[in-house]
Amino acid sequence: MKTAPLVAVSLSPRDLNAALGEPQLSVMNFLNEVKIHYPQAISFSAGRPAEDFFHVREVTAKMDRFLEEECRRTGLDEAAILGSIGQYGRTNGIIGPHLARHLAIDEHIRVDPEDIVVTSGCQEAMALVLIGLLRRRDDVLLTADPTYIGMTGLARLLGIEVVPVACGAHGIDLHDLARQVAKVRAAGKNPRAVYAIPDFNNPLGCDMPHDRREALLALADKLDFLIVEDNPYGMFGYDDVARATLKSLDRHGRVIYLGTFSKTLFPSLRLGFLVTDIRVRDEHGASRRLTEMLSPIKSLTTVNTSALLQAMVGGVLIDADYSLRRHVAPVRDHYRTNRDAMLDALEGAFPAGDPLRASVTWNRPNGGFFLTMTLPFPFDDACLEACAAQAGVIVVPMSYFALTPGRANQIRLSFCANTPSEIDRGVARLAEFIRRRIA
Amino acid sequence: MKTAPLVAVSLSPRDLNAALGEPQLSVMNFLNEVKIHYPQAISFSAGRPAEDFFHVREVTAKMDRFLEEECRRTGLDEAAILGSIGQYGRTNGIIGPHLARHLAIDEHIRVDPEDIVVTSGCQEAMALVLIGLLRRRDDVLLTADPTYIGMTGLARLLGIEVVPVACGAHGIDLHDLARQVAKVRAAGKNPRAVYAIPDFNNPLGCDMPHDRREALLALADKLDFLIVEDNPYGMFGYDDVARATLKSLDRHGRVIYLGTFSKTLFPSLRLGFLVTDIRVRDEHGASRRLTEMLSPIKSLTTVNTSALLQAMVGGVLIDADYSLRRHVAPVRDHYRTNRDAMLDALEGAFPAGDPLRASVTWNRPNGGFFLTMTLPFPFDDACLEACAAQAGVIVVPMSYFALTPGRANQIRLSFCANTPSEIDRGVARLAEFIRRRIA
Repeated sequence: MKTAPLVAVSLSPRDLNAALGEPQLSVMNFLNEVKIHYPQAISFSAGRPAEDFFHVREVTAKMDRFLEEECRRTGLDEAAILGSIGQYGRTNGIIGPHLARHLAIDEHIRVDPEDIVVTSGCQEAMALVLIGLLRRRDDVLLTADPTYIGMTGLARLLGIEVVPVACGAHGIDLHDLARQVAKVRAAGKNPRAVYAIPDFNNPLGCDMPHDRREALLALADKLDFLIVEDNPYGMFGYDDVARATLKSLDRHGRVIYLGTFSKTLFPSLRLGFLVTDIRVRDEHGASRRLTEMLSPIKSLTTVNTSALLQAMVGGVLIDADYSLRRHVAPVRDHYRTNRDAMLDALEGAFPAGDPLRASVTWNRPNGGFFLTMTLPFPFDDACLEACAAQAGVIVVPMSYFALTPGRANQIRLSFCANTPSEIDRGVARLAEFIRRRIA
Repeated sequence: MKTAPLVAVSLSPRDLNAALGEPQLSVMNFLNEVKIHYPQAISFSAGRPAEDFFHVREVTAKMDRFLEEECRRTGLDEAAILGSIGQYGRTNGIIGPHLARHLAIDEHIRVDPEDIVVTSGCQEAMALVLIGLLRRRDDVLLTADPTYIGMTGLARLLGIEVVPVACGAHGIDLHDLARQVAKVRAAGKNPRAVYAIPDFNNPLGCDMPHDRREALLALADKLDFLIVEDNPYGMFGYDDVARATLKSLDRHGRVIYLGTFSKTLFPSLRLGFLVTDIRVRDEHGASRRLTEMLSPIKSLTTVNTSALLQAMVGGVLIDADYSLRRHVAPVRDHYRTNRDAMLDALEGAFPAGDPLRASVTWNRPNGGFFLTMTLPFPFDDACLEACAAQAGVIVVPMSYFALTPGRANQIRLSFCANTPSEIDRGVARLAEFIRRRIA
């Protein structure tokens, strides 16, 4: 129908959301896409789960298990259930009861299915929290620093103030948290919630000891803030220590718990969820669930989460008697082997007695996908580029995840997505790159 | 692990996003869920597509067609392709080239695949537009009034000012649009974009004539605003008149086009897309695609759209040689039959010569899912409730979609999701309810 060539309207960056100009905003894309730009490089960058364990066809086929169960439960025939699964449906999702049973068994979290919102990936759960609970001008989100960029980036995009809290080898620093909460209050603002990843923190790879978890909950009670607990890696502990989620210890409903099947099953299910028992009481004393209040937001971001994908995950849960622990066991062993391979490779590249060992250090994560490496020089964009192009290994500057200076000399290495031999070779290349830099 | 019963934190509505207090915000949930509350009622409420045409299993199985094609294209084996489909992937989606071919064939829209963002339902495409392009304090969204609540509700939630523009039997009123744009500018604000549904408008059921489409594009050029064209119903024209989308007539890239497969295939695919050829030029003259600039926003709302669902839709498109016209033909016939059934039922219930005929009127939509009925009394919440509970028929007050008064006496009837005999019975019940009200 067009007769003339298109002359596109041109906008200026000033016409767009101001936060898009901040380099932090492109980190998510970078992590998802960097491998495309250096196809030959070994990538220790993104937290991509291991594809060998996805079982895409098996998981897809589990929809049948869900259909079967729904036919039994409702007395309807398969065509009717299939129709309702294809259709628009309940905004907060259809597998709340399945998730509640799963959480009770695997995480000791007891929750009413009505207190769960099924989301289009855990990222959307973050959007619901930020849009629903942090949209007043004086609301402030506190976060461990450094932290997952998906949360802080989205907050910036929505114009929400983020206050960083120091994070050490055992997770968020409670003294600094108390200090920051006080500072926010002193500035006339409202420290609404703190965002934390207690189990095998992304990006640092540290985990929060039990007593600090209890202390964090007590501090939240004392200073009256909410806790947003993000737990993508909880199933991937390598020391067989049972860690209690904040939510399972939460006696006052202060914890909004975020979960995902991206790591336990696979990412393109885009299946996450939000759990909160918070009640919203109006001036007449009428009480509603927070999940019910968040529901219109969910309907306005993505209408509802694909019931097709929910049915697949529901089927997996039914089939596994609601526990993913057994399903996850071989995946966890795989990642443990990878972590050990990376620690061994680092040890081999910088052995005890090596003079560099004083200035090249790394932590030993008890679980998750990542470790922190500290170098004797700043590792910036140019370094990343050079390392990828020349040494053929992609790593991520820790500064990408940080809100304050002080992490310039650190990098994040992920060990989730490579074979032990790739890890060996990648670490060897990285070590050589580091030695050349210093030389 | 819990030892004491949970004492939930309680918040006040004042702690939440202020927009959640507006009744408009719950309309989306209402439309999606009202049928659950009146399971026995005949519902003319939501725009739920007809489940008989979903073919959920067939569409799901079309993933294989996509896999086959990807194996051929890349030379990789199926396991590798399946792995990448299960994995995190390209933020803006993997079926851009398929969508581009589909748009060229079915809508005469010629677009570079890079100018497409695949979204988690069309609703997310609206979020990208609003967060990306309307986040400056002085940015204003103009919309036809009444209009789809998903756009105006989300704008309110994000604190974006919405300015209503009159909408008549032939779509958005261009005189009023010019007037509103001028008023917005006079107030020192920026009329960034106008939102319109030219093909078989939701909620009114009207469509925009060709000359008004051309005039709207000319006005956008003259007054310098963008057009967000939402086209969920374009494939469902019942008069076999070929209507040109605004985007196909767009010579200056002013139109951001939003599409969805919720009506052509089925809703729980949650597969939508955004098309824009806008370029963003910085002060050094460097130019980037708007889609590239929106990509970080997409990554921060839902990371990426499920590649599993993209593969299914991609497979359907490949299999159909990229045209859905043939696939849609029986669905369109079905809806046309339904529309005719509703028009006949209305004609039967209020025949020519009936004294009520002067005050009970309706339009005759040329396509889409909805028609507008005008009554001699206001149809409010209580009326809806009474009509559902007593007469057993659910209809939606037009005021639910309106931003200004003046639609109190109108209701929206959808004819998409019922059989002709249900439509007959539903309209008879509604007619009786109306007669009783007046009596």
